[in-house]
Amino acid sequence: MIEGEEEVGSSNLGKFLEGNKEKLKADVVLVSDTALVTNDTPSIDVGLRGLAYMEVEVVGPNRDLHSGVYGGAVANPATILCKMIASMHDENNHITIPGFYDKVATVTDADRKALGEIPHSDDEYKKDLGVKALWGERGYTTIERTGIRPTLEVNGIWSGYTGEGAKTVLPSKANAKISMRLVPNQNSHEISKLFEDHFKKIAPDYVQVTVTPHHGGEPVITPTDSIPFMAASKAMEKTFGKKPIPTRGGGSIPIVALFEKVLGLKTVLFGFGLDSDNLHSPNEKYGLFNFYKGIETIPYFYQYFTEMKK
Amino acid sequence: MIEGEEEVGSSNLGKFLEGNKEKLKADVVLVSDTALVTNDTPSIDVGLRGLAYMEVEVVGPNRDLHSGVYGGAVANPATILCKMIASMHDENNHITIPGFYDKVATVTDADRKALGEIPHSDDEYKKDLGVKALWGERGYTTIERTGIRPTLEVNGIWSGYTGEGAKTVLPSKANAKISMRLVPNQNSHEISKLFEDHFKKIAPDYVQVTVTPHHGGEPVITPTDSIPFMAASKAMEKTFGKKPIPTRGGGSIPIVALFEKVLGLKTVLFGFGLDSDNLHSPNEKYGLFNFYKGIETIPYFYQYFTEMKK
Repeated sequence: MIEGEEEVGSSNLGKFLEGNKEKLKADVVLVSDTALVTNDTPSIDVGLRGLAYMEVEVVGPNRDLHSGVYGGAVANPATILCKMIASMHDENNHITIPGFYDKVATVTDADRKALGEIPHSDDEYKKDLGVKALWGERGYTTIERTGIRPTLEVNGIWSGYTGEGAKTVLPSKANAKISMRLVPNQNSHEISKLFEDHFKKIAPDYVQVTVTPHHGGEPVITPTDSIPFMAASKAMEKTFGKKPIPTRGGGSIPIVALFEKVLGLKTVLFGFGLDSDNLHSPNEKYGLFNFYKGIETIPYFYQYFTEMKK
Repeated sequence: MIEGEEEVGSSNLGKFLEGNKEKLKADVVLVSDTALVTNDTPSIDVGLRGLAYMEVEVVGPNRDLHSGVYGGAVANPATILCKMIASMHDENNHITIPGFYDKVATVTDADRKALGEIPHSDDEYKKDLGVKALWGERGYTTIERTGIRPTLEVNGIWSGYTGEGAKTVLPSKANAKISMRLVPNQNSHEISKLFEDHFKKIAPDYVQVTVTPHHGGEPVITPTDSIPFMAASKAMEKTFGKKPIPTRGGGSIPIVALFEKVLGLKTVLFGFGLDSDNLHSPNEKYGLFNFYKGIETIPYFYQYFTEMKK
């Protein structure tokens, strides 16, 4: 089975899995779409965030207007959308959608302690990204903010004139793509509904809003005491010379929850990339070290898994 | 002289005027780029707002990022730009740039009373624009908000992925085009500087901002006791059967201040369009009534001006 629709939401995969359960029977799913902490620090993701992706449209006047003739007397939907987006994080960068955090699973002190032991330097992180300061939810570390905490991000925004030079237009509408990363036990459908209700509620009388959900995916936690996980861990230890550490991935791989739900299969997240590979960015790369290390390591997984299963 | 660069700032016109003062000598400038209150209510604009048009760029991380891998730990420049724009109007829709209103000329009660007598219905205005509620600076009417008060409008905003469907990107940068309409005695260069200083000051450490001014133009007030104005008024009275009322235009016609500054010429704003002509919008139009009424009226201006000048 080859599927190429992940980035557009895999809307056909569920139906295909339902229709081919027998053919797709397996012991375990191995997904190589995650990253090592560094090339020197092997790691295996044991959790992934889910996703709820929304598109919003804010409509003001029924046509584009001359910003001089009408400016000052008619709400500008771009300004209103900015105000609405600005209100969605409070002064501590908590998300303000009512009920958003209600189902977030409590992370134990032991889990947070384990995350704290993952090698990480905020200074190097800042240097790599070219920023003077980091941003995030108050009370959490960088590793926690990208692993165990949900987020809300503007993935795109557009309104009015965006070409070269100037045009004095008061736009008729403003649009944004806004997505939320979810953590256990948030549900993408519930969160989409909370977002939609809230977004409509905070819209002032001056504008009309439409909220359209794009694809979503559920957060997952993978077991660390299973034979497949132990086989993967042993394979990495063999080729890296170090036991891999368990980490939490910030991204979403919706097929993981789908394979479990439809096929009853658990997944091992057995990836060899790096977060710095420019994923979803220009000049995306995959290092030769990582490529060959994957080729070297994966056969050991099959060997150890077969041995341990006996 | 034919000039076609108004909408891109007329950057060459000043130089041309300076070099051709002698050839461009005239009694008065007649500009037909303004609107009647309605086809039944002839009017002559006696003031225009100025313009300061800025482009801003807010840069966060040095590259587009995967919104799952990095989301939550790095400031999203689209979110930050929204917060910055949202902060530029307070709860009364006053503009928050320090010093912005310092030079705004006081409008007398008599002037406000005259503006209050211009036929206008907020209900019809809302119906025409398809909005449920109007928006604007507290304490001013619609006519005042678009005539005698300065404004700040987002003319364009863009960041991240704006195509069909979804892309889970945390964008590297966010941009906006923001323009301010100015009233006497604000100056476009001073206001541009105030905007730039303020925009840089409110930028948090997480981002770097660049502010680039596009074109500007100065606000103008045209005399109502001059022979050209009286000739124009009489010409309109002749063809419309009603004395035109003096109004204030919300738009900007930068050549008016430029002709006065370089050539020492006063202007009469002798336009025959309508605000509802969809200026700067799709399906811009100009009515046949207005076209023929202009053709009928303007020759009377020449006749009365010549007679009055004797």
